[in-house]
Amino acid sequence: MRIGVLGGGQLGRMLALAGYPLGHEFTFLEPAPEATRGLGTLIAAPFADAAALDALAAASDVVTYEFENVPVAAARRLADRVPVWPPPGALEVAQDRLLEKRFFADCGLPTAPFAVADGREALARAVETIGLPAVVKTRRHGYDGKGQAVLRVPADLDAAWAALAPAPCIVEGWVDFARELSILAVRGRDGACACWSLVENLHGDGILRRSLAPAPGATPALQAAAEAHARTVLERLGYVGVAAIELFEVDGSLVANEMAPRVHNSGHWTIEGAETSQFENHLRAVTGAPLGSTAPVGVSAMVNLIGDLPPDAAVLAIPGAHLHRYGKAPRPGRKVGHVTVRAADPGALGERLGVLQALLAAEPLRP
Amino acid sequence: MRIGVLGGGQLGRMLALAGYPLGHEFTFLEPAPEATRGLGTLIAAPFADAAALDALAAASDVVTYEFENVPVAAARRLADRVPVWPPPGALEVAQDRLLEKRFFADCGLPTAPFAVADGREALARAVETIGLPAVVKTRRHGYDGKGQAVLRVPADLDAAWAALAPAPCIVEGWVDFARELSILAVRGRDGACACWSLVENLHGDGILRRSLAPAPGATPALQAAAEAHARTVLERLGYVGVAAIELFEVDGSLVANEMAPRVHNSGHWTIEGAETSQFENHLRAVTGAPLGSTAPVGVSAMVNLIGDLPPDAAVLAIPGAHLHRYGKAPRPGRKVGHVTVRAADPGALGERLGVLQALLAAEPLRP
Repeated sequence: MRIGVLGGGQLGRMLALAGYPLGHEFTFLEPAPEATRGLGTLIAAPFADAAALDALAAASDVVTYEFENVPVAAARRLADRVPVWPPPGALEVAQDRLLEKRFFADCGLPTAPFAVADGREALARAVETIGLPAVVKTRRHGYDGKGQAVLRVPADLDAAWAALAPAPCIVEGWVDFARELSILAVRGRDGACACWSLVENLHGDGILRRSLAPAPGATPALQAAAEAHARTVLERLGYVGVAAIELFEVDGSLVANEMAPRVHNSGHWTIEGAETSQFENHLRAVTGAPLGSTAPVGVSAMVNLIGDLPPDAAVLAIPGAHLHRYGKAPRPGRKVGHVTVRAADPGALGERLGVLQALLAAEPLRP
Repeated sequence: MRIGVLGGGQLGRMLALAGYPLGHEFTFLEPAPEATRGLGTLIAAPFADAAALDALAAASDVVTYEFENVPVAAARRLADRVPVWPPPGALEVAQDRLLEKRFFADCGLPTAPFAVADGREALARAVETIGLPAVVKTRRHGYDGKGQAVLRVPADLDAAWAALAPAPCIVEGWVDFARELSILAVRGRDGACACWSLVENLHGDGILRRSLAPAPGATPALQAAAEAHARTVLERLGYVGVAAIELFEVDGSLVANEMAPRVHNSGHWTIEGAETSQFENHLRAVTGAPLGSTAPVGVSAMVNLIGDLPPDAAVLAIPGAHLHRYGKAPRPGRKVGHVTVRAADPGALGERLGVLQALLAAEPLRP
C-alpha cells in the first residue's frame, strides 16, 4: 500500500523500515528531511503547505503521522481526500494539555488535579485551588521537559510566568510518584485492541533516557489496569494505530499524565523485544491488516543516544545489543539513535546494560 | 558508511533494511532494479558497464554483492578502486562448479565424486569413471535446479547433452542423502568467525521452499563438523562477510554440495530467528565492525512465497508469522517474498506452519 507520513524524523524512518517487508511504499512530508533520506519519496515542505498536502494525498492510499504537532487543519485537509489514521480528532486532544486532561477525566482515568491558567491572575487562582508544589505547563507544543516550570513556593510564580507567558497554560498538582510507566497500545480498523507490556521510563534533563520492558515488578493487576485505561481512551477516540499513554505509579495505582497519538520513544524496545514491533503494528492497524502479537521476547532495555553517538564498535560488541542510528547530525540534547539490549533474563540484561551505560556520558537518571 | 552493492534484488533489499539502523547508506548497481526501488540510490546499468562501476566505486566506502554471477572482472575493477568484500577470488571459485568442487576437496571437505565433461566424449568418459546414477551440471550459471540433468541409464546422456551443450559441464556422482542442510557462516575483517545453527532445507521443483532452523535433530557433533568445514573454507578464501555452504547429510556425516559467497535464502530465518541476522552480520563484517551473536531465538521455519503472494491478512493472522514481501511483480517460479514463523518450541511451530502451508499452493516437497 502507498503510505503517506506527516513528519520525517526517526519515527518515520523506523515506520518505513518496518513497512518495506510488508510491501508498503512511503512518501514523507517533512520541512527539514534528515532521518528519512534514502527511504521512499520526500516532499520537503512545511506541514501547512496546501499544495504539498494535496501532493501527499495524491501519492497515498492512507496517511498517518509520526509527529503530533502537525497542524490539525493539515490533517483535516488530508482526511477530506484520503483515509487518515489516527483520526485528526486524536491529534486535537493530544496537542492541548487541557483538552487532554479533561478527556482523561471523562474517560475515568485518574489524573493530577489541574486548572487552566490563561493569564497571570488565572495562574495565581489555579495555584490557590491546587496548592503547592505544582507544575505549570504550556497547553501546547511542550516536549522533552520544555514549556514547563515547577512551582515550589509562591515566589516561583513570577519567574515561571515570565518564562512561559503569553502562552496559555495549565497548572497541575504535584504527583509524588514512585516511577513513570508507559503503556503502548494499538487499535485496528476493526476495533481489535492489543497492548504491549508496561514499560518503566527513566529521564535525565527532561528527556527520556532509558526504558525497561517489561517494567520490573509490574503486577498482572497493574498491567490489567493500564490496559483497561488504554482501551477506554482508544475506543472513545475511535482510534486506529499505536498510541502511548504515560502514567505515574503512585502507591501501586496509576495516574494518567499524557498521551502521544503515534508510535513512541518508550516503545522502541518492541523492535527486538516483542513479537511484533510498535512500528509494524501501527502499519498493520492503519492499513486494515490484522494486528500482530504484542508478547515480549525476553527482557529489554532501550537506551537513547542523545547529543552524540558512542563508538559503534563498542556498542556492537555488547551481546544482545541492537544499534539504531537515525541518520541525524549530532547536536546537544538531540536524539540521534538508540540501543536496545535484549536478554533472556534480568540478570543478564543488567550486566549488558552496565557495559553500555559505561560507554555513555554519565547523566543522573530520574523517573 | 557508504555501501555499494552489486545487484539489487531481495537480498540487496534486506541488506539495506538491516543497514539503515547501523547508519549505513546504500548504492545499488543493478540492470533491472525492482526490489531495491525506494531504498538508497540506484545505478541502473549492466554489471559490465565500466562507467557505472566507476560511479559505484566513487559512491562507496566499501562494495559487496548480493548476487554471485556478477562478472569477476567487474568485481576486480571495483577492487582496484575501493575495498570489495567478499574477495573477488571467492566469486571466481563459487561461479564454477569444477573449481568449487576442487576447492572443497583441497579444503578436506567430503564431496560427491566428480569429473569434468567439456564435450560429449568427455561426458561419456566421466560417466564411466563415476557410474550411474549421476548428475550432469553446467559449470557456470546454474541456479534453482536449472542447468542440470539427472543421468539414470546410459540412454539419458544424449538428451542431457542436447539440453546443456555446448556449456562446459561437470558430472557428479549421485548422493543418496537423508536431507539437505546448510551452514551459514560469517567471517570478520579481523578473522573472527561465527556460524548460525544448521538449517534443514526442503525443495520443490528445484527451488528452495522451506527452511527449518535449528535443523531438527542436528547433533552438536554434526553442528561442530559443519562449522569446522565452514571455517576452513572461509579462512582459505581470506573471506569477509556471510557465506552459505549447502551440505548433504549422509549416514550422519556431511558431504559438501556448493557454496554461495553472499547472504543466502536459507538464512532468511535469521532476521527474526537469531540474535543477529545474516544481513546485519554481513554488513558488520564488510565494514570491519565486531560480529553479532548468531544464537537462535526460539525455533523458526522460513517458507518461500513463489510465483505469487497469498492474501496478506491470512498470513499476518498467524501467530509468530513475519511477512517479507520483495516488491517484485508476481511471475511463475519467481521468489516474491517469504514468511518466517517463529515459536518457542517445535510443537507450536508445527501448528503455525500447518496454517501457513494451507494458504499456499500444494507443492510436493523433497530434500
